Amino acid sequence: MKNSNRPLIFVTNDDSLHAKGIASLVAVAQEFGNVVVIAPDKPQSGMGHAITISHPLRLFRSEIFDGIESYSCSGTPVDCVKLAVYEVLHRKPDLILSGINHGLNSSTNVLYSGTMSAAVEGAMEHIPSIGFSYGDFDPDADFSASMHVAKQLIPQILTHGLPQGVCLNVNIPKGPLEALKGMEVCRQAYAFWEDRFDKRIDQFGRPYYWLTGTFDSREDATDTDLYFLDQGFATIVPTQFDLTAHQTITGLKKIFK
Amino acid sequence: MKNSNRPLIFVTNDDSLHAKGIASLVAVAQEFGNVVVIAPDKPQSGMGHAITISHPLRLFRSEIFDGIESYSCSGTPVDCVKLAVYEVLHRKPDLILSGINHGLNSSTNVLYSGTMSAAVEGAMEHIPSIGFSYGDFDPDADFSASMHVAKQLIPQILTHGLPQGVCLNVNIPKGPLEALKGMEVCRQAYAFWEDRFDKRIDQFGRPYYWLTGTFDSREDATDTDLYFLDQGFATIVPTQFDLTAHQTITGLKKIFK
Repeated sequence: MKNSNRPLIFVTNDDSLHAKGIASLVAVAQEFGNVVVIAPDKPQSGMGHAITISHPLRLFRSEIFDGIESYSCSGTPVDCVKLAVYEVLHRKPDLILSGINHGLNSSTNVLYSGTMSAAVEGAMEHIPSIGFSYGDFDPDADFSASMHVAKQLIPQILTHGLPQGVCLNVNIPKGPLEALKGMEVCRQAYAFWEDRFDKRIDQFGRPYYWLTGTFDSREDATDTDLYFLDQGFATIVPTQFDLTAHQTITGLKKIFK
Repeated sequence: MKNSNRPLIFVTNDDSLHAKGIASLVAVAQEFGNVVVIAPDKPQSGMGHAITISHPLRLFRSEIFDGIESYSCSGTPVDCVKLAVYEVLHRKPDLILSGINHGLNSSTNVLYSGTMSAAVEGAMEHIPSIGFSYGDFDPDADFSASMHVAKQLIPQILTHGLPQGVCLNVNIPKGPLEALKGMEVCRQAYAFWEDRFDKRIDQFGRPYYWLTGTFDSREDATDTDLYFLDQGFATIVPTQFDLTAHQTITGLKKIFK
């Protein structure tokens, strides 16, 4: 039931309005506030911070979640945040939740992640924002551990807020709730994809390529999200949109003067 | 003419292989090395760090630049970098150049920019990488000032390299070469879009939306790219892919323990 004293919580994701992950997140969010949902009408994984500027956006009302104002959007997760603030809510929500993603967005995967880009866009709008990702790509993944983490974090963020310009990248390791060791605030690991392309030939004899690869080129460190996920902890990485490598400015000024 | 002792320079952009900006950058790059080009087959502005994973990529040889091995790609700028390293060059080039973008990518626009995401992807591959953007959206913009800046920077980066995990976001203010005051290494400004949607009705009576807005919500500071661009300088922002807000970890540990 809507109550104007309850926080306004906006929910989005990148796996589309039809994913089990967003249904799980909406179920948790409802306990803490009035929920409005705008999510992509099709999977938008890997869309990063993309916005739709070369063609128009579509937004259609959906009845997918009982009693929850919901919309499907033809655009990206970042488009969904912008449409929420400026076209649907006509105000900034008190909290943005993105996910729960089917698959981790730890380490440098944050850059490719539509789920996390929605949270980063929220931070740019000065709205407390959290992206949740779970270590299982299965469409029917068991989100109980992720929902437990969300239930702990959401009231804390509603109470304390977040530092200006910062959102949270929350990743939950695959496994049942009982196996979860706890939560750790930590940094993004320095690790990378070893990309490969699967080259195939179409019915006209022309080549096409599927992006594939392995994510295993990583540093040996004990203070990163990859380390703590391996140890069975949910990880919380405070994530910012200031990409400036401040520590290099003084040195580079000497070269470029 | 190809010379195996010359540096291998990979060039891409987000305005497509047919943009004047990339032709200008290829012309400069040729002076310093052997050039290979892969660029999107259509404009990919605003694609951020998107990658193509839900459908296959196409890559076709192009003869658009005399004597330069060039390809058009159906994907994003980041796809172009990955295809270059892993499918076309089969090695890491000595330098990645992206642009010259038609329009600035200063301040938080770096997050939405396909041009800059290609450079960030280069940094993730440990390849010295520079994104160039010019303050004029005109398809026939005068890139002489930008080409002058590129001619200065390219040999310096080939000589000195860049700090690990850092690429350069170079923006050149609109105007003739004679008006350019110089170059400044500085930080990304804290400024944001005030988004708006232009809502229209299609021939079936259904709404559609164009993302629009103004970029004018900015801090009052004298050490940022927006400040120096206004003063007539080209700006060089060292840009990293570590999004961790390191300065907030200690404080957040107290909340989430």
